[in-house]
Amino acid sequence: MPKRDLISMEDLSRGDIELLLDTAESFLPVLERDIKKVPTLRGRTIINLFWEPSPRTSSSYDLAAKRLSADTLVFRGTGTGAGVNVERGEALKDTAITMDAYSPDIIIMRHPSAGACRTLSANTTASVINAGDGMHQDPTQCLLDLFALRQAFGRELKDLKVFIVGDILHSRVARSDVMGFRMLGMDVTLVAPPTLMPRGIEQMGVTVEYDLTNLKDADVVYVLRMDAERAEPGSAYLPSLREYAALWGVSRARLRPGQRVMHPGPINRGAEITADVADDDENLIAHQVFSGLAVRMAVLYRTTVGYSDTSAEEEVL
Amino acid sequence: MPKRDLISMEDLSRGDIELLLDTAESFLPVLERDIKKVPTLRGRTIINLFWEPSPRTSSSYDLAAKRLSADTLVFRGTGTGAGVNVERGEALKDTAITMDAYSPDIIIMRHPSAGACRTLSANTTASVINAGDGMHQDPTQCLLDLFALRQAFGRELKDLKVFIVGDILHSRVARSDVMGFRMLGMDVTLVAPPTLMPRGIEQMGVTVEYDLTNLKDADVVYVLRMDAERAEPGSAYLPSLREYAALWGVSRARLRPGQRVMHPGPINRGAEITADVADDDENLIAHQVFSGLAVRMAVLYRTTVGYSDTSAEEEVL
Amino acid sequence: MPKRDLISMEDLSRGDIELLLDTAESFLPVLERDIKKVPTLRGRTIINLFWEPSPRTSSSYDLAAKRLSADTLVFRGTGTGAGVNVERGEALKDTAITMDAYSPDIIIMRHPSAGACRTLSANTTASVINAGDGMHQDPTQCLLDLFALRQAFGRELKDLKVFIVGDILHSRVARSDVMGFRMLGMDVTLVAPPTLMPRGIEQMGVTVEYDLTNLKDADVVYVLRMDAERAEPGSAYLPSLREYAALWGVSRARLRPGQRVMHPGPINRGAEITADVADDDENLIAHQVFSGLAVRMAVLYRTTVGYSDTSAEEEVL
Repeated sequence: MPKRDLISMEDLSRGDIELLLDTAESFLPVLERDIKKVPTLRGRTIINLFWEPSPRTSSSYDLAAKRLSADTLVFRGTGTGAGVNVERGEALKDTAITMDAYSPDIIIMRHPSAGACRTLSANTTASVINAGDGMHQDPTQCLLDLFALRQAFGRELKDLKVFIVGDILHSRVARSDVMGFRMLGMDVTLVAPPTLMPRGIEQMGVTVEYDLTNLKDADVVYVLRMDAERAEPGSAYLPSLREYAALWGVSRARLRPGQRVMHPGPINRGAEITADVADDDENLIAHQVFSGLAVRMAVLYRTTVGYSDTSAEEEVL
Repeated sequence: MPKRDLISMEDLSRGDIELLLDTAESFLPVLERDIKKVPTLRGRTIINLFWEPSPRTSSSYDLAAKRLSADTLVFRGTGTGAGVNVERGEALKDTAITMDAYSPDIIIMRHPSAGACRTLSANTTASVINAGDGMHQDPTQCLLDLFALRQAFGRELKDLKVFIVGDILHSRVARSDVMGFRMLGMDVTLVAPPTLMPRGIEQMGVTVEYDLTNLKDADVVYVLRMDAERAEPGSAYLPSLREYAALWGVSRARLRPGQRVMHPGPINRGAEITADVADDDENLIAHQVFSGLAVRMAVLYRTTVGYSDTSAEEEVL
Repeated sequence: MPKRDLISMEDLSRGDIELLLDTAESFLPVLERDIKKVPTLRGRTIINLFWEPSPRTSSSYDLAAKRLSADTLVFRGTGTGAGVNVERGEALKDTAITMDAYSPDIIIMRHPSAGACRTLSANTTASVINAGDGMHQDPTQCLLDLFALRQAFGRELKDLKVFIVGDILHSRVARSDVMGFRMLGMDVTLVAPPTLMPRGIEQMGVTVEYDLTNLKDADVVYVLRMDAERAEPGSAYLPSLREYAALWGVSRARLRPGQRVMHPGPINRGAEITADVADDDENLIAHQVFSGLAVRMAVLYRTTVGYSDTSAEEEVL
């Protein structure tokens, strides 16, 4: 079986996505047992290779691997900013050689550069899973968003109307979500200040708007995190966070009852979203977080056993 | 079974303390085997959530969990000072949501703020164990101190005379120890410079002294670590470390033979304690360190299976 | 059985080295299975105690221990430079007491000071394995170099001609390799700028040269990493990295076909070695990296079960 990467949502067909979500669903009962473990990937080696600290994401993958009984190895720099190996000038290729000496089945990588996962994949026999590469892609975030949407709206997501609001330009989450949401036939509108909207994004089959006038048309309002640095004095993007919050911040007043709010975390209350919306039990934010573990277990499992064999998970559970 | 936290010594009755110490004792033989593991908590998930680096404490909990066959997850910031999540402005509540997505059985937390463990507990379904919260409490330190005292003096600690010497004001260890020692009927005297003694502490049933005149009355001399920053130029607490060492430092000359010295570590030789006392084989410092593992195994075990069932550990071992 | 350390190549006889290499070879088939695990060290505790960050080395030991089913504990500072415990003034002896409370079977230590491993060993009941102590020794690097040489040249390494080129003065790798290579009867030549050649090194039975004139006599060219700091303005060692590369850098033009190049990593392309030589598939660099895991498994295994019983590994596999 040739190795299978998950670097971009483009690596998946619509059928692959459905299979991953079904597999994730089949893991839910495991997560409710006292003994939350299956022996599926025993003796397999999964490496977490993080060039940027991201304890939330790396621990989620680490636990997903442990729940499947795999051996995990966390590999990251201990200094600030980039990892030690980068500081010491070791190229990604040398790191791939180092990793390959461990015969890993899967390498999960987060890296500040958009192309890094493909470079890694070309230099390792392991399957590569992208846990976020620069502003490029974050495919498991898209999958867990889809999983949370399924939990709320059922298996059929076609024609669901989603508004994605915020810093589309710098967001790998937006890039992955647009791709995955469109593949499942959802109706996607992007809203951002003109300075934070990528040119030509309409070609991905989305509607583009520059204010929140039509927000109440949405079934789902997906709010992106606004980094304070976009509004620092002298920034070309935003005059101030306060102005952003006033014009594009998602507040109770801008929503109608029944709309479901999503956010990839971590939340900046008072910037892109008001505290009352962020803390409302009706939003899907906790569902998103909760979905991460089952979806990552499904991705690790499918990456190892393949996407074709749909009977495999029955045998496992 | 409702969840059970261990945030303060107040969460325990005298009977609970005795049960925890007995459980810890029952784990000692396990720690002497070649294969130092029991399957008790297999498939359970225990999260170490450390907002301040404390490799000694976090690794002690981590190993205790592994000896019980639990899966562990270490969650901490990689920057200096507080954790990454704090730096990025993620509130404790959001962290609790993130943790809960992993369905942990127990979250062990160290945090710089005194109230943080209660806030966490209100937002998670997991049991919370306090591994030190600001200047408030460090209950497992008190339990391991009691365990070390039992090893030296037997099960009956009533009326044992303990002097706790040092920076009582800033010490969560002192606060926990006073509470636990008093619950077991020990006779506790606190000695500190007036600037480092909390007002009204006598209400906890302790004697307060401001010099070491009566130190030889003690059966046990418990020396607290003196942070050098209390004696920095301009400090309101101490004119200098040297003066502190001269007036309140515990030295051979101030002790009588047979007195047992304790210290929570890490030791500042030449400040609160002289090197000969710190390195004397008769002190209980190594006993304290050794007690940590068995006591933390007992706390994890009792937090999971409950405090009522006293037959459970026989079945386990 | 008295405990057995591996702190310097001097701790090994020629027979011990051969046994370790044979044991490592016996682990190779395990590493090719789907389930890359043996139960040999189940329930044993192995501590990684790293005072300098070295994710490559510590993760290699960590995985070696996991492949043998041992429980591992990684203990390191989280600040920059030395570990937190050092910053807080805790002496090595106190750390040894802390570690001993976990009853570890083996402590693997990297430390910036040359004598630190012997100090640790004197204060712990665990066996100590040196993962690099200052400029002193790095014995498993030597063993994995020997293992890679065996893979390339067969079991008989006697009279193999090796040139070690670079910063001999500051290199613990060179110190360990010279010792091990000589014990196996290899013919060793050291090449360095005069400022980077230790005085009197000839006493170890090596030939000393100051330029690359005779490089083509070598069967194996072992290139050491050149730290850029040796060539910083004002350095007493080198006028510039460019001059070092011009005079002592190993390039294609300086090699003859059939010579095998080694490097301990991480590589500074364009400094001590040109990119084409570093990336040539004929070099042994990937073999070295690959050898690390099997050799470290062998060291952990032999340290635990002893060096005398040569039938033990058959029973294990």
